Amino acid sequence: MRIGILGTGVVGRTLAGKLAERDHDVVMGSRDPSALAGRTEPDRMGNESFAEWYSKHPAARLATFAESAAHGQVVVNATAGAASLEALRSAGEDNLEGKVLLDISNPLDAAQGFPPPLFVSNTDSLAERIQRAFPRARVVKSLNTVTAAVMVDPSLVAGGDHAAFVSGDDDEAKEQVRSLLRDSFGWRRVIDLGDITSARGAEMYMALWLRLMGALETPMFNVSIVT
Amino acid sequence: MRIGILGTGVVGRTLAGKLAERDHDVVMGSRDPSALAGRTEPDRMGNESFAEWYSKHPAARLATFAESAAHGQVVVNATAGAASLEALRSAGEDNLEGKVLLDISNPLDAAQGFPPPLFVSNTDSLAERIQRAFPRARVVKSLNTVTAAVMVDPSLVAGGDHAAFVSGDDDEAKEQVRSLLRDSFGWRRVIDLGDITSARGAEMYMALWLRLMGALETPMFNVSIVT
Repeated sequence: MRIGILGTGVVGRTLAGKLAERDHDVVMGSRDPSALAGRTEPDRMGNESFAEWYSKHPAARLATFAESAAHGQVVVNATAGAASLEALRSAGEDNLEGKVLLDISNPLDAAQGFPPPLFVSNTDSLAERIQRAFPRARVVKSLNTVTAAVMVDPSLVAGGDHAAFVSGDDDEAKEQVRSLLRDSFGWRRVIDLGDITSARGAEMYMALWLRLMGALETPMFNVSIVT
Repeated sequence: MRIGILGTGVVGRTLAGKLAERDHDVVMGSRDPSALAGRTEPDRMGNESFAEWYSKHPAARLATFAESAAHGQVVVNATAGAASLEALRSAGEDNLEGKVLLDISNPLDAAQGFPPPLFVSNTDSLAERIQRAFPRARVVKSLNTVTAAVMVDPSLVAGGDHAAFVSGDDDEAKEQVRSLLRDSFGWRRVIDLGDITSARGAEMYMALWLRLMGALETPMFNVSIVT
């Protein structure tokens, strides 16, 4: 499948690397691909430079947001929540038309210290803002509830016995995302939370997730929903 | 142990019944105990009348909020979130002084339809409001993340293999609550999320919990935290 991934941070790289490995045709989108490709220093978090990562993952091509979105049959929003709407505007409404837009971002307000609060929550969500701004895209919220490494390889935690969620207004789009999660990443349990407003639940869970990361001293965990 | 339980709805009754069964000395607190004791009709949700419930659970005595709080070595806030601060003011600051105040309420805004949003979240929480209003009480948030039946009998879900949380500023108070959860209800895993601000996470999880209840078509579930 042709997949456009908007965002070249750890989350975008992790998804692009795994999807390319699974023989998808991946184009990553960046605001400024030539500047990014020339960056050879680790970032402030100590992550390897994009150039270094890119040299090991040549199958995932780098392009602009618009080229990446135009390429994808499915487009993934893997940008930081605070930058997502601007990135999607750069990607272009026409390039998103009718497509599944898998939104894995979180509306974290990084300027407010740690743990960060959300910049939208409770009576609205980032996924809903995106759906309203791009009514012809078929937005599905998913994967935002786990760290990047677990998104693409759930078996890293408890042998894969835990849950991902999907939220969205388009049942067929949710089914496509479920298939992608199952077939490309190995997710065995994906719970349909409901329409796009149910993304509030998945995003607000971040407030608990961040505290659990502190208590467990690792981001390598997830919730299993038991009955 | 002498326990005061503020609130006589399903949550208050469920806790009072189980704690009395476990030989704790329980006094339930109500705004108007004589009116409540005389109520013989089921409520709007179809729950049995308090009088009927009370006739089966004579060990849990009924009194005013103030008498209940004065009685308890531990005081439980099992009132509806929107009514909690008023109930605690009726209970009286002096009756809460130095005591563990176990807050199991959720700040649900029931006037806003279903699923209800929260009336406080993200940068504050109901538990923090209670701690600020009663600085001499030792507030511990816990048990608000499961339905009443599971609070007092975690074995009803997945044989008890799932997690409760505690949040609070007082480590000794949190330890007392952990002991109560373990010894009186059988909770095997109780995760300390951190100080009282971490109650934001436990309360905001309600937004996900409500959607999960819809997806699973039952409130009899919980999260197991897996690594």
